[in-house]
Amino acid sequence: MKKYLFGIDIGGTTVKCGFFDTKGTFLESWEIPTRKENGGEKILPDIAESLKSFLQKQGISAEEVEGLGVGVPGPVLKQSVVERCVNLGWSTVDVAAELGKMLDGIRVLVNNDANVAALGEMWRGGGRGFHSMLLVTLGTGVGGGYVLEDKIVSGAHGAAAEIGHITVNERESIACNCGRKGCLEQYASATGIVRKAKELLEDSPEESSLRKLEEVTAKAVFDAAKEGDVLALKTVDFMGKVLGRALADISAVIDPEVFVLGGGVSRAGQMVIDVVQKYYAKRVFPAMTETPFRLAVLGNDAGMYGAAFMILGKEHRS
Amino acid sequence: MKKYLFGIDIGGTTVKCGFFDTKGTFLESWEIPTRKENGGEKILPDIAESLKSFLQKQGISAEEVEGLGVGVPGPVLKQSVVERCVNLGWSTVDVAAELGKMLDGIRVLVNNDANVAALGEMWRGGGRGFHSMLLVTLGTGVGGGYVLEDKIVSGAHGAAAEIGHITVNERESIACNCGRKGCLEQYASATGIVRKAKELLEDSPEESSLRKLEEVTAKAVFDAAKEGDVLALKTVDFMGKVLGRALADISAVIDPEVFVLGGGVSRAGQMVIDVVQKYYAKRVFPAMTETPFRLAVLGNDAGMYGAAFMILGKEHRS
Repeated sequence: MKKYLFGIDIGGTTVKCGFFDTKGTFLESWEIPTRKENGGEKILPDIAESLKSFLQKQGISAEEVEGLGVGVPGPVLKQSVVERCVNLGWSTVDVAAELGKMLDGIRVLVNNDANVAALGEMWRGGGRGFHSMLLVTLGTGVGGGYVLEDKIVSGAHGAAAEIGHITVNERESIACNCGRKGCLEQYASATGIVRKAKELLEDSPEESSLRKLEEVTAKAVFDAAKEGDVLALKTVDFMGKVLGRALADISAVIDPEVFVLGGGVSRAGQMVIDVVQKYYAKRVFPAMTETPFRLAVLGNDAGMYGAAFMILGKEHRS
Repeated sequence: MKKYLFGIDIGGTTVKCGFFDTKGTFLESWEIPTRKENGGEKILPDIAESLKSFLQKQGISAEEVEGLGVGVPGPVLKQSVVERCVNLGWSTVDVAAELGKMLDGIRVLVNNDANVAALGEMWRGGGRGFHSMLLVTLGTGVGGGYVLEDKIVSGAHGAAAEIGHITVNERESIACNCGRKGCLEQYASATGIVRKAKELLEDSPEESSLRKLEEVTAKAVFDAAKEGDVLALKTVDFMGKVLGRALADISAVIDPEVFVLGGGVSRAGQMVIDVVQKYYAKRVFPAMTETPFRLAVLGNDAGMYGAAFMILGKEHRS
């Protein structure tokens, strides 16, 4: 294996570039803006330019670079082709081929950002020590990344671990972002938590510290719950029930070694784990009652680490 | 690779032994009884004895045998150890180590029978041409086998693809065999189909050819449905709805290349595919609407073929 590698996480606003040696040591990171205008045509040239100038400054030749792992916010086929990526303005783009060409043939592997983040959390984050895990990202929406034996599982259509779109409520009347109704994302995301809290605030006369807030946020709900606010606790309990039960059903499909909870909502910490695990254990097939739950720890760096690990591979895991 | 290999499927009543060459050609098969008395202590010696005498008759030495794949009706850890197998009377048995010892050190790989059957269907059955699939076994219960990139996914507790125990009905009052309530198995198995038909027969005055039968079976329900019997059609539709929706949720986790439906119920043929796929397509995340459905074709031979393929490996897939 050569001496260096890059882990690149392309986000809707910025591209995060990480530089590592092939022992897995993180050396340096920086960000450049994601220029989405004109169908995002500048994004890959900008990255290539930035990496080239970095290498030049460091006095490192392209021959010393083992490869480039890339995470993108859309479905990816064959670790290479993005078919459509609304967040970047792309239609079909062969990221691996194009970036490789701009970078003197350096090897490029591409995957969906949620999957790449899962790999990062497994390598250096909440999933450390495990080899198969499901990362559950609880943010504005609910996403996921499935890693099996140190490798990302993308699925036949790049849609594996799209767990936010498991249907959990057949009687929902409001549509999810995906156009269907009753998706997990509608209840377990930050948005879903706020919605549930507002419903409870409207439907019950119960006193709650949330009533005093100008804006109810998921964080405010968890903060109030930690203070013992009954209505906030009910909201958290509802979220835990919906998510815990869904993860139990997921265990009956993939039986992961560990669940890692990430995204903004997971910053509420152990309380999220506790409430999700409570309902998980009640529902799951007996053999999997003890599956551990962990919090993600890498935050926005998970993608950069995971992208690096795609190149490093499990043989060099440390 | 050496010249020959065995694929062994240990069932509750008989052990099916298959002999193949390492080009993947099936050469011969036979069965021996499964002797479950005394904690099933005779099962492995019986198999070893049978294989040895077979090799001797054929004038083939153990050195010419690449290995032995084995399917067992219970959870298996690390392709070797069965922790508890009620169907065979076993407590913890290291099948790979014990059989290997009895057979002059021949390499032995072990896996759960449903998983092994999935591998067989992928190699030589309904999943031919695919590399990632979910086998859904609709028999007395509902089982499954998950194959990813030509390899079985067993899960951390050997419970991956235990899809019969996904909860699909939170309001069920009758307990499943697993002790929980509302499992997929309670509706999509042959038993579940019969139960639903009986409920409909009791609850509605509707004329039905099923009323004339001494015993309602799943096969009779499908036969009547094919003749246009309204009550039977309702039963089939209900089964299709429950299973189709569950498979849609499973797609949002593993996004398989294909679903293969097997087990006794699948003998009803295209009608099962049609009704399941109808509800699947309505429910699934859009990217996966076109995931194909196939019927299993190997029947009771699937395990023998899959066990052989465990040894053969994807490099030698033909």
